[in-house]
Amino acid sequence: MTTFNSAEAYAPASMGNVGVGFDILGLAFCEPGDIVRVERRLDGTDIVIESIEGDGGVLPRDAAKNTASVAVKAFLKMIDASSGVCISLKKGLPLSSGLGSSAASAVAAVVAVNALFGEPLSCEELLPACLEGEALVSGYHADNVGPSLLGGITLITGTSIQDIYRLPVPENMHFALITPNIAVPTVEARAVLPQMISLKQMVSQTGAVARLIDALYRNDLQAVVQAMESDEVVEPARAMLMPLLNEARTLAKQKGALGLVISGAGPTLCAVCDSSKTAVHVADALQGLYDEAKIGGVARVTKVDQTGARVLNVL
Amino acid sequence: MTTFNSAEAYAPASMGNVGVGFDILGLAFCEPGDIVRVERRLDGTDIVIESIEGDGGVLPRDAAKNTASVAVKAFLKMIDASSGVCISLKKGLPLSSGLGSSAASAVAAVVAVNALFGEPLSCEELLPACLEGEALVSGYHADNVGPSLLGGITLITGTSIQDIYRLPVPENMHFALITPNIAVPTVEARAVLPQMISLKQMVSQTGAVARLIDALYRNDLQAVVQAMESDEVVEPARAMLMPLLNEARTLAKQKGALGLVISGAGPTLCAVCDSSKTAVHVADALQGLYDEAKIGGVARVTKVDQTGARVLNVL
Repeated sequence: MTTFNSAEAYAPASMGNVGVGFDILGLAFCEPGDIVRVERRLDGTDIVIESIEGDGGVLPRDAAKNTASVAVKAFLKMIDASSGVCISLKKGLPLSSGLGSSAASAVAAVVAVNALFGEPLSCEELLPACLEGEALVSGYHADNVGPSLLGGITLITGTSIQDIYRLPVPENMHFALITPNIAVPTVEARAVLPQMISLKQMVSQTGAVARLIDALYRNDLQAVVQAMESDEVVEPARAMLMPLLNEARTLAKQKGALGLVISGAGPTLCAVCDSSKTAVHVADALQGLYDEAKIGGVARVTKVDQTGARVLNVL
Repeated sequence: MTTFNSAEAYAPASMGNVGVGFDILGLAFCEPGDIVRVERRLDGTDIVIESIEGDGGVLPRDAAKNTASVAVKAFLKMIDASSGVCISLKKGLPLSSGLGSSAASAVAAVVAVNALFGEPLSCEELLPACLEGEALVSGYHADNVGPSLLGGITLITGTSIQDIYRLPVPENMHFALITPNIAVPTVEARAVLPQMISLKQMVSQTGAVARLIDALYRNDLQAVVQAMESDEVVEPARAMLMPLLNEARTLAKQKGALGLVISGAGPTLCAVCDSSKTAVHVADALQGLYDEAKIGGVARVTKVDQTGARVLNVL
């Protein structure tokens, strides 16, 4: 097995649900993303977290409790290696923001350590190790790990690689994201969901998901966004956790967006636009909305990341 | 307005649900189908049912109570005509069998009467009149009327023509149908459905519907059928109304079918095969199964009707 001394990888942010596709759809954003650097340890066989930047000191430095190191440990077990590895994590993603932060760290770490060992596993084979890391924080689920690892828009119906389907990405799909300065822990966003729904709601939800997949294949961005917004189950339950949701949607549409949905469990909101110019206008307007309301937040403009996680360098 | 003396039209049978797509998917079968002949009345302005063949005398001859005549009446109102029309109906479809019998009669009648008046309306514009007829028996819903009128595999998310989407039809999609000699009234098949389902079931159901649409676009028949069969809500509730359902599925698969689902509200079962030869084998086996069980039934082999309802002749 060829091994290197160090490797660095990038994994993109992602949006679970993509509106109406609760727990079955995910989408990778070009940015933001996390960068993980791993180094072979010459002085021990443990996994050590050397540094974390950009998390405001919040993430655990204990390797047993960090999503990146737990994922690396699972990878090393898969390839039956008991090497020592040092991990340095640069968080580009805000935490608990509905952008798949823990998934991006786990994915970047696994892609980096796979490169460190000369890529013994294919990209697809890395999924279980990434899921082990993600499970520590968000449960054993691939709706962020899948798109962050593979890129694109993905349908996720299980936790094996054969349960993840790449869907077509419409041309000219641009996003304006606003991440308000509030925390919405995923556990809280899950707690407000109804445990039971009516059969009629199921029909509405399956119909909207079907329209979404159909519209993706027909490259009909307007129909895609209309379907994304047709969620009658999850968004209504979570709306109260998202300050200014309705105002943000109305404003985004006034500025030319085709629609707006909650990214994952929120609080990030994602407006979909048909040009980068419109996305910039919408992002500016959303930033203004949250600033004026004294909530504040970070606005971003991005697109679908078609590549997924990638190695930045190997030495 | 050009008018003729008589016109005859054919409308195909259809399968609501297509497995997992409860109340949102429908599919037209090449056969069986209903034929309706309409004639201009020279002796009155009423709508009269002249004859019905093939129904065993069960269907109402009263024009106010028959799906075909009610649909014709709605059509005549749409074009603002108050002509008298005679209707002759040849039922090719068994009643209450899960093959869209009432829809086929309504659709054939409307397509025929539209031809009688020189086709003042487009095929799509005929939908509301067809729905009026269907509503008399099965509720105002387009899951059988849509495919019977338009052909193909359709996604139906409402009762307007813009809520009906044609989906791709996989190559080599062949069916073996068995209609056991038992009646399962739609109202009874609806009564057994759960009113509430869990959020987890919704996720499973939306995921399976998404896989189905994706597989149709990818022309992957095996994945299509696997998704069709992944219904965890409706089929389990209705299974007790369908004698030998599990045995029929097992037998069909032994004979080479890719899978088997309940057609609409049943009792017809639909096995999906990848060749006409296999479909013939499977149909024979299913016929044998129900004959041996002293239930009896009618087995058929068919394909997707891509055309939908059509005019047979105009004089």
